[in-house]
Amino acid sequence: MSLSPTLKLAKDLISRRSVTPDDAGCQELMMSRLAPLGFTGENLRFGEVDNLWARKGTDGPVLAFAGHTDVVPTGPEQNWAHAPFDPVIKDGYLYGRGAADMKGSLAAFITACERFVANCPNHRGSIALLITSDEEGPAKDGTVKVVETLEARNEKIDWCLIGEPSSTHEVGDVIKNGRRGSLHGYLTVHGIQGHVAYPHLAENPVHAVAPALDALANEFWDNGNDFFPPTTFQITKIQSGTGSNVIPGECLVHFNFRYCTENSAESLEERVVAILDRHKLKYDLQWHLSGRPFLTDKGALVTASQEAIRTVTGRETELSTSGGTSDGRFIAPTGAQVVELGPLNATIHKIDECVKADDLDTLSEIYERILVDLLG
Amino acid sequence: MSLSPTLKLAKDLISRRSVTPDDAGCQELMMSRLAPLGFTGENLRFGEVDNLWARKGTDGPVLAFAGHTDVVPTGPEQNWAHAPFDPVIKDGYLYGRGAADMKGSLAAFITACERFVANCPNHRGSIALLITSDEEGPAKDGTVKVVETLEARNEKIDWCLIGEPSSTHEVGDVIKNGRRGSLHGYLTVHGIQGHVAYPHLAENPVHAVAPALDALANEFWDNGNDFFPPTTFQITKIQSGTGSNVIPGECLVHFNFRYCTENSAESLEERVVAILDRHKLKYDLQWHLSGRPFLTDKGALVTASQEAIRTVTGRETELSTSGGTSDGRFIAPTGAQVVELGPLNATIHKIDECVKADDLDTLSEIYERILVDLLG
Ligand SMILES: [Zn+2]
Ligand SMILES: [Zn+2]
Repeated sequence: MSLSPTLKLAKDLISRRSVTPDDAGCQELMMSRLAPLGFTGENLRFGEVDNLWARKGTDGPVLAFAGHTDVVPTGPEQNWAHAPFDPVIKDGYLYGRGAADMKGSLAAFITACERFVANCPNHRGSIALLITSDEEGPAKDGTVKVVETLEARNEKIDWCLIGEPSSTHEVGDVIKNGRRGSLHGYLTVHGIQGHVAYPHLAENPVHAVAPALDALANEFWDNGNDFFPPTTFQITKIQSGTGSNVIPGECLVHFNFRYCTENSAESLEERVVAILDRHKLKYDLQWHLSGRPFLTDKGALVTASQEAIRTVTGRETELSTSGGTSDGRFIAPTGAQVVELGPLNATIHKIDECVKADDLDTLSEIYERILVDLLG
Repeated sequence: MSLSPTLKLAKDLISRRSVTPDDAGCQELMMSRLAPLGFTGENLRFGEVDNLWARKGTDGPVLAFAGHTDVVPTGPEQNWAHAPFDPVIKDGYLYGRGAADMKGSLAAFITACERFVANCPNHRGSIALLITSDEEGPAKDGTVKVVETLEARNEKIDWCLIGEPSSTHEVGDVIKNGRRGSLHGYLTVHGIQGHVAYPHLAENPVHAVAPALDALANEFWDNGNDFFPPTTFQITKIQSGTGSNVIPGECLVHFNFRYCTENSAESLEERVVAILDRHKLKYDLQWHLSGRPFLTDKGALVTASQEAIRTVTGRETELSTSGGTSDGRFIAPTGAQVVELGPLNATIHKIDECVKADDLDTLSEIYERILVDLLG
């Protein structure tokens, strides 16, 4: 049985051990396929992170495919049915770390470009790829830095197609046209340390913070809206004391908001402070805004994606903004339309990550139809 | 200036580095003074702990002095004004680790015995010393084991005088005639771990436990009584999660009750379980009863102590049951009357621990008066 070009390339990419932030030669392999098509590649290395900005054409509009070559760690390799960096196709599935997230998508887009450029060498606008090896990690030296570089020279992306695994049951059944924001809070509540036998000389910060945490956990933040589910609050860490007979002096609490456009980072911060103050806590509070929410409402990119999926698979696509953050949070603020469209996400970050082999060929066809629709 | 025998002996004891559980020869030094008086010494070593049971006489009633030769660690020695194991007397104070807790008391009782036996060689009853090197540590191989040994051979203590530093402003102003109980709880609340982006698939145990902790911290346990302050509850540790984007799967909480005779360990355990169940938590809960409360109401030992203090110092003594636990919790259940009477506790367990030099001589006189009163 001979493999399709997409599956061959996907296997080549998976066999490179590109655990964050190591690109392990993936971007070079991709450029070796893109250069013959007329792409110019630019390596943008920041810290330990390899980034690639490849572009074919100088005019607008610019359709950029965004993605990452890095993968999350495998966990214990002996728990895998097949070695995670030794991709195999079995019973119609391609197995390996990154098969679904997201080396399969990278391969699918490159082969889509190959067919599209062969059929339509004089297409309008530009095709680009924005590829990082730091999507799964701290995401500090990856897409965000490339976007800064592009912004500094006023190079714009009009449509951004992100290869993240958006599909739920069948390829193309869900695309993401936005994401919630993510806001981290780091709280330190101050008490007075002391001996449990003399509580009147101490102030227990865990006793003090408990009702405030209860209030935060039960606060109604908003109802969501047509595009977003309601804002959620979760405590991700609490730490105080060492046991024995000591009343702790401090209590640390980390929490995270996933928030919709009915709130802003600023409004949430204000409301948290009000709740903490209402409980008369002595505290320090630090914030880290991981990403603001973004939304790409109906428009050329959403329409082209929906029509491509309908043409290739016959499916009607659901628009969704649920799930974790993605590098779209860095690209959307530049004004680009952003859509995430990729394979099924059921096995990502897990042991025995896999994707239906046929789905990658289908995905490549969908990407090709989008190229035809927008730039053909 | 020549030192009193009590101060000389106290310095000799302090100069031995007997950090728990190391006795460092203190008990041998004590026996070298007691043997000439007619005491028979018994070394009871359990695990790493040296214990001494010394007794003069075979008849009842038995007045036993209980104490410990071990001291708590010094902390950074360079922070001490004088080396902690190199005792000095300066401006009327004896400095050194253990000066107040409780090598000064050990010296004072031994010199009191020396004078008492010289004046009253044919006293009634017996004098005993129950000394451990594991009072400041886990207290598993110390007094509790000696008491078991004595109980097994039906050897009874009638009156137990504990040398713990009971005094607040002036030597003898406070004696302890009981202690609160101490009950530890170890709670694990079970949730379901998950990603913060998908809270509907997870159950946050910190959110679940917060209102229960608030309820426990604000529960009215009892009002105390004539002898005891009210029961108190303190959380000593809470631990859950690692931060990042993960909803924790479990939350650990350690807490401690200091409780009076208006409650029992059993009643407190029941009430905690009821509060946890009312909050519909899934949890495991373990208990460790560190000591039940004990009380020595007015009686021969309390009266003898009060009169000795009045005679020697002119002071009226306050009876108290406040503060931490002591080894009295192991002795009181045998039926002995138990009183704690020792020097000022202001500097115990601290840098530059010290005791007024004169106070040790005063204390020795008080101890002698008690011996005269009860056995003379
Ligand atoms: Zn991904
Ligand atoms: Zn002590």
